[in-house]
Amino acid sequence: MIKVGIIGGTGYTGVELLRLLVAHPEVELAVITSRGEKGLPVSALFPNLRGRVNLVFVEPDDTLLKGCDVVFFATPNGTAMQSAPALLEAGAKVIDLAADFRLRHAEDWERWYGMPHACPDLLAEAVYGLPEANRAAIRSARLVANPGCYPTAVQLGFLPLLEAGIVDPCSLIADAKSGVSGAGRKAEVGILLAEAGDNFKAYGVPAHRHLPEIRQGLAAVAGDPLDLVFVPHLTPMIRGIHATLYATLTVLDTDLQSLFEKRYADEPFVDVLPPKSHPETRSVRGANQCRLAVHRPRDGKTVVVLSVIDNLVKGAAGQAVQNMNLMFGLPETVGLEGIALLP
Amino acid sequence: MIKVGIIGGTGYTGVELLRLLVAHPEVELAVITSRGEKGLPVSALFPNLRGRVNLVFVEPDDTLLKGCDVVFFATPNGTAMQSAPALLEAGAKVIDLAADFRLRHAEDWERWYGMPHACPDLLAEAVYGLPEANRAAIRSARLVANPGCYPTAVQLGFLPLLEAGIVDPCSLIADAKSGVSGAGRKAEVGILLAEAGDNFKAYGVPAHRHLPEIRQGLAAVAGDPLDLVFVPHLTPMIRGIHATLYATLTVLDTDLQSLFEKRYADEPFVDVLPPKSHPETRSVRGANQCRLAVHRPRDGKTVVVLSVIDNLVKGAAGQAVQNMNLMFGLPETVGLEGIALLP
Amino acid sequence: MIKVGIIGGTGYTGVELLRLLVAHPEVELAVITSRGEKGLPVSALFPNLRGRVNLVFVEPDDTLLKGCDVVFFATPNGTAMQSAPALLEAGAKVIDLAADFRLRHAEDWERWYGMPHACPDLLAEAVYGLPEANRAAIRSARLVANPGCYPTAVQLGFLPLLEAGIVDPCSLIADAKSGVSGAGRKAEVGILLAEAGDNFKAYGVPAHRHLPEIRQGLAAVAGDPLDLVFVPHLTPMIRGIHATLYATLTVLDTDLQSLFEKRYADEPFVDVLPPKSHPETRSVRGANQCRLAVHRPRDGKTVVVLSVIDNLVKGAAGQAVQNMNLMFGLPETVGLEGIALLP
Amino acid sequence: MIKVGIIGGTGYTGVELLRLLVAHPEVELAVITSRGEKGLPVSALFPNLRGRVNLVFVEPDDTLLKGCDVVFFATPNGTAMQSAPALLEAGAKVIDLAADFRLRHAEDWERWYGMPHACPDLLAEAVYGLPEANRAAIRSARLVANPGCYPTAVQLGFLPLLEAGIVDPCSLIADAKSGVSGAGRKAEVGILLAEAGDNFKAYGVPAHRHLPEIRQGLAAVAGDPLDLVFVPHLTPMIRGIHATLYATLTVLDTDLQSLFEKRYADEPFVDVLPPKSHPETRSVRGANQCRLAVHRPRDGKTVVVLSVIDNLVKGAAGQAVQNMNLMFGLPETVGLEGIALLP
Repeated sequence: MIKVGIIGGTGYTGVELLRLLVAHPEVELAVITSRGEKGLPVSALFPNLRGRVNLVFVEPDDTLLKGCDVVFFATPNGTAMQSAPALLEAGAKVIDLAADFRLRHAEDWERWYGMPHACPDLLAEAVYGLPEANRAAIRSARLVANPGCYPTAVQLGFLPLLEAGIVDPCSLIADAKSGVSGAGRKAEVGILLAEAGDNFKAYGVPAHRHLPEIRQGLAAVAGDPLDLVFVPHLTPMIRGIHATLYATLTVLDTDLQSLFEKRYADEPFVDVLPPKSHPETRSVRGANQCRLAVHRPRDGKTVVVLSVIDNLVKGAAGQAVQNMNLMFGLPETVGLEGIALLP
Repeated sequence: MIKVGIIGGTGYTGVELLRLLVAHPEVELAVITSRGEKGLPVSALFPNLRGRVNLVFVEPDDTLLKGCDVVFFATPNGTAMQSAPALLEAGAKVIDLAADFRLRHAEDWERWYGMPHACPDLLAEAVYGLPEANRAAIRSARLVANPGCYPTAVQLGFLPLLEAGIVDPCSLIADAKSGVSGAGRKAEVGILLAEAGDNFKAYGVPAHRHLPEIRQGLAAVAGDPLDLVFVPHLTPMIRGIHATLYATLTVLDTDLQSLFEKRYADEPFVDVLPPKSHPETRSVRGANQCRLAVHRPRDGKTVVVLSVIDNLVKGAAGQAVQNMNLMFGLPETVGLEGIALLP
Repeated sequence: MIKVGIIGGTGYTGVELLRLLVAHPEVELAVITSRGEKGLPVSALFPNLRGRVNLVFVEPDDTLLKGCDVVFFATPNGTAMQSAPALLEAGAKVIDLAADFRLRHAEDWERWYGMPHACPDLLAEAVYGLPEANRAAIRSARLVANPGCYPTAVQLGFLPLLEAGIVDPCSLIADAKSGVSGAGRKAEVGILLAEAGDNFKAYGVPAHRHLPEIRQGLAAVAGDPLDLVFVPHLTPMIRGIHATLYATLTVLDTDLQSLFEKRYADEPFVDVLPPKSHPETRSVRGANQCRLAVHRPRDGKTVVVLSVIDNLVKGAAGQAVQNMNLMFGLPETVGLEGIALLP
Repeated sequence: MIKVGIIGGTGYTGVELLRLLVAHPEVELAVITSRGEKGLPVSALFPNLRGRVNLVFVEPDDTLLKGCDVVFFATPNGTAMQSAPALLEAGAKVIDLAADFRLRHAEDWERWYGMPHACPDLLAEAVYGLPEANRAAIRSARLVANPGCYPTAVQLGFLPLLEAGIVDPCSLIADAKSGVSGAGRKAEVGILLAEAGDNFKAYGVPAHRHLPEIRQGLAAVAGDPLDLVFVPHLTPMIRGIHATLYATLTVLDTDLQSLFEKRYADEPFVDVLPPKSHPETRSVRGANQCRLAVHRPRDGKTVVVLSVIDNLVKGAAGQAVQNMNLMFGLPETVGLEGIALLP
């Protein structure tokens, strides 16, 4: 059994991690911490876990955490970098669901996240946890930076095109739509039901923190220069990301459907739909799955890729468990076989 | 392995049955029928099942079905009664998720459902599949009438009070609210998102078919006379039933909290919340669970019970699997351990 | 022209008041105050008002406000009672959309609202602004307590029955459902789209502040003793209240439909639907309207009344404008002719 | 008074037309037709119109209709072209809210709409009713083709860029998102609340009928060649379109904000937001308004325009009334001053 600790865990990635780990046959949930909710039973905060999780939130405690085989950080940005070095030192593996270890260069991180990085030396060691791109490195990693939700959906859609070298890497557009759980479980007027319900809007068009993360991941494949326009939108639903991706083809005679199917043939969690399909976010609701469709409208020069994930599963907690499975030599799909809830 | 057939299965109870049965370790899905969709892969209709269900809808075929250990009817009312006798004759067990075998008296059925009953003689044998009331009979049943969604939520809330004889059985009011999936997957203007979204209304106040079913179940405990006012409402959500139940106390000194806790202490799928709680439908979304809270506002003469279920799980497919487990001597919770999806 | 001031106005009743008053032909919007948003153009906070409202939020300023003919308080409870006396003194009329002047007895107010009342002497003078019950008094009032949203829907539904003396006044049950805008425009986790969306729950069952207000209004008609069970619920929509009302008939031969139609025959904003109807909240979305239906299911002893309003219009801002019209001798419907937005 | 007839009118553009026309001071509603609902009071179908519209649906009747000053077609595609010639002949003006007269070339229409055109000779006379592009022609038109909802949002966003000649006309991408009322009031499984709620998907990526309409409108300004990729999406809300528009700048030193502000300075129904803004669909809910924002992310080569409308108002019924005002020499804004409903 893998002894697991969770730091943070009062947010949506936290409750989703708990839902998945409770049902994972190789996991023993040892400790979950929260300064704000210490003393509160987990199931009092998340009633879906009544009768299934008997843990109580405790204050972060080094002794308990250092005794874990793996520690998940489900914390705000800037927290994991404070504690990760000591945990790694003590022999625990670390999976950070926040952004602390996603960018390879400390100066990039500091510019986009507005604070100095507490352990820039670990950035070189940290492995970006997108298994479909970095599986081998993840297997041997001590420290995994779990990708952001938008970056997961966008990279999985663009990767086959960039790897094949058939699109102009300076023509990329990612028009992405997210459910509101992506904004987290925090008291903010803008994500109230009375504000975000029955409403649609873009946000962060001038700049969004997921842009450098996506750019870094894609440039690792395509090289530089690479140019991406990224426009996120808030859509009135709870879970789900739909990324609509555009690129200009430089090679026009590729069988795009076949390219995508081959690229993901062995991937347990990426599903390429038949030609002319339109994936729906609900088809992955609650499941660790990305579903893709590729189109070339009117046989023009623009390829359109449609990519859907559940932002809390393949976009966060599910991918974190997938990474844990890899890091501990387990079959990659253990504990992640849940079928999406539809309707 | 239990060999399972599903008749119908293109509706919401069908897809939910499939989601549960695919993951059930003791089940082999043998056949699923649909006249309208014959030839269509199940996963083409329900994309959440892609890669998990390889069956194709076929026309109803007696040979295939009679070879099953159990056949689920996920059909409109009036269908199961046509085929159930032959299947039972052939040795299959039958679980009907529609209403054909829910009322004990053929004349009641005919009045409420507007058609003659095709096998009234089976009504006496059929067992009403509410395990919390009829567990022993279900274990030995050949034919189970799976309860309606409203009747499940309402009966589980009223049972402790009526069994204890502490309320006036002529004072019962059930004010129930359902998500729109309860109306089924059918093309009707009234349940369009543009009609039912951001809207709330009652319906069927003069009479609703679930009334005689609830009345029959409660009278089995409380005897006659018993009077129930049942007002269902449509609420702009997909899954979930919230029943708010009112009764006039005739005995005022009962510890209501304790009464409920004791009644359901051994029930794996009924959860009594602590005093002053308000259960949420999302706390049971996708789970085979009923959560209850009992209140006596301002220490008055009226007891208020709040009861939530997922109409497609404990109110339909999950309860059907629970019944199957009982009928086949399996642990009652096998295949039903899924945790509710929150948020 | 009536010179109007608004105190508060950064919440949902504020923006709705603005929407209505901007289009009111007899109103000149003179000033709107907000300590928190002073200096901000109103249209920057509420983009629907761009090009229509050029006011900027200012700090409360006695000179400006005292020069108004009427001042609306769209503030939290406990604010209006601080400033109303001085404004009345200066000759302005006051309409409070919060609860400060709704209860006639200071001790009741203090118990339910948890603070001492700043001007208990004004409680006797304040007129409860439900025009359908108190029209004459409102016409001559200086100070109007605009009713709460639940109390409006509930009282309009019960009034005909209690006035006619045909129900047991100790048998009243109000099962009410509200959209989330009723909780206000404030940063709270419980009303996030990711929490309250696709979810249904009761709240405040042990006690809710609207209970004494409803009780007071109904007892004014029915006398004492009167007993009401009030159970509010949160429903996943933005606007709208649906009250489902139950009472035990003591006189069984009344023509209930005719009773309701006669009671409201001359009311411009109360619409009694034909027999067997089910009013929908969307039929009053954005409109100053209450729609009612009365049922007697299965000719039993229980009468069921269905009552819908838009909580922000007939339940708040619209009713406030209706009261203003009465107080200034204008036709009651001026500025309130807007038709509900459907779909 | 303008004597108005409506053909069709049982759908969402119909009820919205009625809401606007009832409140229009220069309009007399003379007749509304529906074969399917003849004999039914309009207010029985649309309860928001109770007490405001006393008309009953009648069968189409030439005598009545020919006596109208203007006839609106709120019918499915292919209907208006059957009756428009006779009405025009009789002296009535015609505004078609469907697509019959939107494309200038009959062969295009027949290819995209799959039926022969009944009066191809009228296509040359018909004026495309986008006032911001064709105001003068509309004023003198007998026959106006009211634009589609997507085409309105997309063209208003691209026009300033194409008129100024500062983008590559072969680089246009329109990623558009619509609420479900855009699909109409018809019984279809795909737009049920249980299907389209809490879900997001693209549709029609290979080809959508609004593509040639948008292309024709833009090419009228930019000339040929012009290439547009148009990807529509269904978003879980009732009203609203959000178009996110992308184009490659060929001239990099234009002040884009100023360009847009100047272009629309005199337009009563187009509102250019300040720099760095993100318009929300709810800011135009129920209002005849388009709100735009223009961005140039990270000073790159791609311009991003965000454009929102209410698909039933500026995208249908409101624009039709705007066209009527122009055709009859009325001030353009009469009857269209309604403020958007927020929240």
